[in-house]
Amino acid sequence: MASLEKYLNTTEKCKSLFESEIRRLKTPVCRVFLKGGKITPVDFKVSGLSVKSKNAAKVKEKFPHLVTANGDKILMAVAKKSKDKIKNKRVAVLFSGGPAAGGHNVVAGVFDMLGEDNTLLGVKSGPKGLIKGDLFEVKSEDIKRIKNTGGFDYLGSDRTKIKTPEQFEAVKKTCRDNKLDAIVVIGGDDSNTNAAFLAEYLSEHIKEDGSGVQVIGVPKTIDGDLQIGKHLPISFGFDTATKIYAEMVGNILQDTPSSKKYWHFIKLMGRAASHVALEVALQTKPAITLISEEIAKKNMSLEDIIEDISKVVIARAKKGKNYGVVVVPEGVIEFIPEMTKMLQELNKTVAENESELENKCLAEKRDILSSVMGAENMKLFSSLPEYIQEMMLFDRDAHGNLQVSQIPTERLLIDMVKHHIKKAAPEVKFATLNHFFGYEGRCGVPSLFDAAYTYNLGLAVGAILLSGKTGYIASFTDLEKGGKILAVPLTALLNVEIRHGKEELVIEKALVELDSPAFKYFAKNRERWAEEDLFNSPGPRQLWGPASKQMPVTVALNQGYSGLEINIG
Amino acid sequence: MASLEKYLNTTEKCKSLFESEIRRLKTPVCRVFLKGGKITPVDFKVSGLSVKSKNAAKVKEKFPHLVTANGDKILMAVAKKSKDKIKNKRVAVLFSGGPAAGGHNVVAGVFDMLGEDNTLLGVKSGPKGLIKGDLFEVKSEDIKRIKNTGGFDYLGSDRTKIKTPEQFEAVKKTCRDNKLDAIVVIGGDDSNTNAAFLAEYLSEHIKEDGSGVQVIGVPKTIDGDLQIGKHLPISFGFDTATKIYAEMVGNILQDTPSSKKYWHFIKLMGRAASHVALEVALQTKPAITLISEEIAKKNMSLEDIIEDISKVVIARAKKGKNYGVVVVPEGVIEFIPEMTKMLQELNKTVAENESELENKCLAEKRDILSSVMGAENMKLFSSLPEYIQEMMLFDRDAHGNLQVSQIPTERLLIDMVKHHIKKAAPEVKFATLNHFFGYEGRCGVPSLFDAAYTYNLGLAVGAILLSGKTGYIASFTDLEKGGKILAVPLTALLNVEIRHGKEELVIEKALVELDSPAFKYFAKNRERWAEEDLFNSPGPRQLWGPASKQMPVTVALNQGYSGLEINIG
Repeated sequence: MASLEKYLNTTEKCKSLFESEIRRLKTPVCRVFLKGGKITPVDFKVSGLSVKSKNAAKVKEKFPHLVTANGDKILMAVAKKSKDKIKNKRVAVLFSGGPAAGGHNVVAGVFDMLGEDNTLLGVKSGPKGLIKGDLFEVKSEDIKRIKNTGGFDYLGSDRTKIKTPEQFEAVKKTCRDNKLDAIVVIGGDDSNTNAAFLAEYLSEHIKEDGSGVQVIGVPKTIDGDLQIGKHLPISFGFDTATKIYAEMVGNILQDTPSSKKYWHFIKLMGRAASHVALEVALQTKPAITLISEEIAKKNMSLEDIIEDISKVVIARAKKGKNYGVVVVPEGVIEFIPEMTKMLQELNKTVAENESELENKCLAEKRDILSSVMGAENMKLFSSLPEYIQEMMLFDRDAHGNLQVSQIPTERLLIDMVKHHIKKAAPEVKFATLNHFFGYEGRCGVPSLFDAAYTYNLGLAVGAILLSGKTGYIASFTDLEKGGKILAVPLTALLNVEIRHGKEELVIEKALVELDSPAFKYFAKNRERWAEEDLFNSPGPRQLWGPASKQMPVTVALNQGYSGLEINIG
Repeated sequence: MASLEKYLNTTEKCKSLFESEIRRLKTPVCRVFLKGGKITPVDFKVSGLSVKSKNAAKVKEKFPHLVTANGDKILMAVAKKSKDKIKNKRVAVLFSGGPAAGGHNVVAGVFDMLGEDNTLLGVKSGPKGLIKGDLFEVKSEDIKRIKNTGGFDYLGSDRTKIKTPEQFEAVKKTCRDNKLDAIVVIGGDDSNTNAAFLAEYLSEHIKEDGSGVQVIGVPKTIDGDLQIGKHLPISFGFDTATKIYAEMVGNILQDTPSSKKYWHFIKLMGRAASHVALEVALQTKPAITLISEEIAKKNMSLEDIIEDISKVVIARAKKGKNYGVVVVPEGVIEFIPEMTKMLQELNKTVAENESELENKCLAEKRDILSSVMGAENMKLFSSLPEYIQEMMLFDRDAHGNLQVSQIPTERLLIDMVKHHIKKAAPEVKFATLNHFFGYEGRCGVPSLFDAAYTYNLGLAVGAILLSGKTGYIASFTDLEKGGKILAVPLTALLNVEIRHGKEELVIEKALVELDSPAFKYFAKNRERWAEEDLFNSPGPRQLWGPASKQMPVTVALNQGYSGLEINIG
């Protein structure tokens, strides 16, 4: 036991058996990067593929350098012709936004592609660190330590947006102080929008020779809402997060016919898009899954949703199945059209009647509101459970705005379904439990898919930089047929969106399309899943063995692949 | 994609790639069961080990047959001498209580050991099904389908206790109707207590030839509170549940230095004992882990606990670490001595002043209480957050009792630590999130440890039955040295406990011992874990590959093993 205690002490600081083995795990490398078994730079040539902004003229106006240089053509990695070696490049890499599994492997991929002749610098604490100039040199020991591990802790991250002229100026200073040739931004839609602006701003007169600093983006977000059809199958971190959630949902599904006791309402992280909920649904096949985009598109009311859920609960009860699972996307409330309408009027009314409403109890507040608000909105508000009404009236941020994300959607649904069933079918037993899976999905060790995907994205970024390009986002496609490395022009992804009342050029969040193969497959099968116990319990993600190579089901369907296994290299 | 859709349809009903592969996974078999590579019955001989009840006389009085037959001697499996084959035995197997990973493998083990010459019957819905006589024949196709899978859904389970004479009589009828020779009870401490009573009751005059029906118990519970020192290392399901929780806690730990934003308070299932919290702590090394048994033993007050947590939060903040993880066992509230005392008086006071308290608001209720209750208890009550006070006064069950399990301990701690820090160190930023991991740990696919442990327990049960014994619980020890199969007399585990004011003979729950190697290792190291980020993120449990064979750390420490890897067969 003394020897066991000694061993246990050596496992501290991420050196458990699993964590040690994971670092030794070989991730497959796309063949284009291999020459004689060694990682090697590539050329980027025009692929014949392109992507177009809906607001090309506006984009050209704001991004004269990038649009002239890159246009809307997607580049493709091909074997390198010349034997010239690029040397002495100094590249900085940073994480932006919430963590996602595989970030460390992007860093490892860039490092390995740059090789010994160039230098990789890590930016501490994300964009904030880039502004402050908080950089350090990445060493090969670090890469060994972080390879295949979860988290963003090697560099840290933050959510600063580089927007003001002073911030841009500060970044320029950081580039000059550190003699940077390039910056790699690992982030979501907003961060890659930022990367596009940065690429344009830094495109010339930065370095001593008058040239610019290259900027390349990497698609990260567990929400999966940064994807570009066939040109970018998915953002990294999505696979790991959904595999973690799918295991948990699957475990609970497996529990339901064992215990025959509860309906579990499970909220999953992801405020804007329902990709996570859809993926988990396809992996686990629960009785009910709400898809926010469908609710918005079909203009469903809250009552419609409650009725739909109740119908399934009652139908299953008739078959003796007083149990089941309902998967709820975190942001669903904001996709119910009547709800957004009501909240808008509520916000306005509360702001305009602040003094009158002060220090009143709920019933009194409701009286005041109903004398001002429209009947329909008031009816919806009054139909909500009282603690939700209270939250909507009392829990407001410093600007007086309701924190919609604070509303416990899963409990709201439970209470309203309970209420509905009590009236519609009082004989039905309906015991419930609720869960929220979120933070546990961001920093898990990457799945084999994410580990390979991110390492190859990192290699791609390194290669794009060595080829001298700027203003691209790296992509990795054809994942069932060896893999293809692409560089997609960031500016071609920008479209006009109204934010805070102002026109802005941004990368739009990719939402679940109701005509996508993944959603259509879900829609075609969900009624059977609601009626019978056809669920899966897909288990913990495997890093070794026969079940390790699975990719996200939504990706395989939407990319038109013939199977679920990755085949890279 | 058509072919992908077709494939996806074939994965319904637990036939995903992972679930299909898991069924094919070979679990190691203890050598004593193998003859020429085939599973074969064994003899059970006296091992030299024994276990003694503290109330032997009382036990003998209640269990004359069993005590005479089995005494307190632990039996050990050895190679079978004779070549006689036992035939035509009819054995019934049931699950009792909440699900735990590996239950299906116990059934598979019993089935494989009984072989083709005997019949295994499954009892539907636990003890309730035994009373009703709801049995069906287990077929080899079923075993192929359930092997290595999670959940108790193959048989179902329930929490009925067989207590009344009518219930015992009904079980006797079931035995006769189904011509049973034996019953296997897979359950926790209470279910195995029940198995002892059943074994005594059924020990003679049940079958036509005047002989009895054998009853054998199997130690199940994710809480890990059914263990007997070196004679029974752990109940099954504990390893899988703690590995699932440890992955989640590890993922969140990995998130903390990535985001540098939150203290996460994580409640883990397990109301009576803190084995789960201790095991997860040893696997993940968070800043703070509460152990209920220590709190009780050291007579710590709620304020002591709040102060201890706050100290760590403040000390870490000074090092720039405004983040961390606190692991909280579900039942901790009931282990705080002053809390139990206060709740006792509160329950009494509320019951005695029911009419006076009715329809009063919280402040008024508090006034009434403070005129009746002792000052110390009242002070503690008033120190709690108001919503907790309200819960304690308003949320009572049909008998007027407080549902202690309903108290959101993790939120209570957060609020009180927040309050404390605001006074003690107002400059410290303390943002929090809370989690509860419970149900997702009960029905996951068994870890390799649990899969092997339960399959061998099942083989052991089958072999004990074939050897003609009754009134034993199956055990599997020496897990790092090939494994040893034991049969422990159930009656020797019974001790007197006061339940509902009455003396009862029960198997006591095994709590965390403060002088156990596992707790001592934790206590020796936790201060360092609180100061620095020394955590592990032990990852998802692996069923294949180099990291698949790990056993629980508490088991390895308490059994005095030299490493963490199982070595069976």
